[in-house]
Amino acid sequence: NSKMKLFTLTGNEPLAREIAEHIGIPLGKCTVNRFSDEEVQVNVEESVRGCDVFVIQPTSQPVNENLMELLIMLDALKRASANTINVVMPYYGYARQDRKSRAREPITAKLVANIIETAGADRVISLDLHAPQIQGFFDIPIDHLMGVPILSDYFLEHEGIDLEEVVIVSPDHGGVTRARRMADRLKAPIAIIDKRRPRPNVSEVMNIVGEINGKTAIIIDDIIDTGGTIKTAAQALVDKGAKDVYACCTHPVLSGPAIERIQDSVIKELVVTNSIQLPEEKKIEKITELSVGELLAQAIVRVHEQESVSILFDQT
Amino acid sequence: NSKMKLFTLTGNEPLAREIAEHIGIPLGKCTVNRFSDEEVQVNVEESVRGCDVFVIQPTSQPVNENLMELLIMLDALKRASANTINVVMPYYGYARQDRKSRAREPITAKLVANIIETAGADRVISLDLHAPQIQGFFDIPIDHLMGVPILSDYFLEHEGIDLEEVVIVSPDHGGVTRARRMADRLKAPIAIIDKRRPRPNVSEVMNIVGEINGKTAIIIDDIIDTGGTIKTAAQALVDKGAKDVYACCTHPVLSGPAIERIQDSVIKELVVTNSIQLPEEKKIEKITELSVGELLAQAIVRVHEQESVSILFDQT
Ligand SMILES: Nc1ncnc2c1ncn2[C@@H]1O[C@H](COP(=O)(O)O)[C@@H](O)[C@H]1O
Ligand SMILES: Nc1ncnc2c1ncn2[C@@H]1O[C@H](COP(=O)(O)O)[C@@H](O)[C@H]1O
Repeated sequence: NSKMKLFTLTGNEPLAREIAEHIGIPLGKCTVNRFSDEEVQVNVEESVRGCDVFVIQPTSQPVNENLMELLIMLDALKRASANTINVVMPYYGYARQDRKSRAREPITAKLVANIIETAGADRVISLDLHAPQIQGFFDIPIDHLMGVPILSDYFLEHEGIDLEEVVIVSPDHGGVTRARRMADRLKAPIAIIDKRRPRPNVSEVMNIVGEINGKTAIIIDDIIDTGGTIKTAAQALVDKGAKDVYACCTHPVLSGPAIERIQDSVIKELVVTNSIQLPEEKKIEKITELSVGELLAQAIVRVHEQESVSILFDQT
Repeated sequence: NSKMKLFTLTGNEPLAREIAEHIGIPLGKCTVNRFSDEEVQVNVEESVRGCDVFVIQPTSQPVNENLMELLIMLDALKRASANTINVVMPYYGYARQDRKSRAREPITAKLVANIIETAGADRVISLDLHAPQIQGFFDIPIDHLMGVPILSDYFLEHEGIDLEEVVIVSPDHGGVTRARRMADRLKAPIAIIDKRRPRPNVSEVMNIVGEINGKTAIIIDDIIDTGGTIKTAAQALVDKGAKDVYACCTHPVLSGPAIERIQDSVIKELVVTNSIQLPEEKKIEKITELSVGELLAQAIVRVHEQESVSILFDQT
């Protein structure tokens, strides 16, 4: 086996440090700066010749900066004769641009896969891709981890929740599989928010498929961005008789009005992971942050030892 | 011949409009926005099927934003069945990272070439690449235009300058060829600022090779970034007896302290091109802006009509 080296760029340094601690090796020396004109300057300050290198970098906000840091780092590692270059992207930016829904739209999620490969990646480890199809955008191996076990375990041990009363809610049709997975772990039923526009230019009707009256609803989504969907969904659940509403997601993008909306919503608690680093001003009391550090550390070790990674998400 | 369509992104819209006017066709409809989380959204709002498309986008500041806009646009055009996709980059960002000067450095200028090709470009038109070798970083055709004729013509008609007294100055060894070209057009001699560090950790000595005493010096460079080099060079010229010092460059990056340094320097006038759009606060009186709009328009028309482009910079 080649020697393992871990590097972090500026995307999520605390998570990278946590991963390094779990694995029990220090982060490699590398500095990321900006020239006066804002061009990215990456310096890898220790040899990587013949090493299996893992670069930890979610492409969260600022997405274009983080992506360029990653590409430039890959270029540097490739030219420095690394044995393998493994990209650990806990959050994969641009994942929602994954198909043409109108004429002449780009498919930026595919473009990003292409340029990561071009820059020199040999393998990608990611977490809850917005669509699992994004795995197929890569021609290199990709390990796709899931946040559901971590989120579920938290609720399984939650003091304020009676598990007998729980219903897992998908905020849209696209998220039903994820809700189903969580429901299996919590041995709970599911419900679906079934939004429908009866006619064009008429406002949406919020229908709820499934029994929620008197129950504790836990909404699960992959990404919470501006918080609009989750806020309206929570309100609809309360309006239709839910007792309490919790929400959870893997990726707290939380852009624009998100924090205000969550603060003002009927959501009792929002549970997220640290796939994206929350800036201090977004760490409000309602938000609970769980760590994916150990999960990613295990995945990295298994990839390096050429063991199966699927065990990490098949375990129920 | 396929139909020509011109598009601009946000890098330099005034220049793109000028180019479109010279060619006599309107800019294609296309909007570039940001989602709430700052991801780039590009909408091409008219058909490009079967067209020869030219996308005008210098990758100047904010370089990573401008580069991502370009890549995403190329992806959209490729999927929209454009006949050919031609990238017009009056300024090529990251050009100064064009070689490994230390261990484990990236060669970002090559990475940028690779990802532009990966995204779908068929051809590149650029202007004064920091090193002409960057042409070889592409496996697609690249037309490399020069700013020297435009800068030279301005000084040839300059009322305040006696051409008999002019000396063209290269601020470093790397720029001598460029200075030689300008000197040929002005029928003037050249001089070179010959910086030298006698021993490590001893400050640089500014030596001037060539006759400048009592002369009007015109310093020429490709990029002026923080203005340090040009300010010190101008001072050295005056100290060694130059009567007046002018400066010119193709790409006014002008980052950080540049404007202040130029303002405070002995430089009488700085002549630049609009390859990079100058924000209002950088348009100080000392700076004269020349347009490369007509040059780029001619290059685009010639590329589209499959005529030689070399005539545009061979003419003396
Ligand atoms: N960064 C973004 N922020 C908000 N919406 C986006 C973003 N990227 C893509 N979209 C849109 O989100 C939709 C896809 O999301 P979904 O239907 O949940 O897969 C498409 O209509 C995209 O245009
Ligand atoms: N954006 C930038 N700003 C300032 N210096 C840079 C930039 N990009 C690269 N460099 C450095 O500039 C030098 C190359 O410039 P040159 O010697 O003029 O070709 C190298 O030492 C680079 O590390």
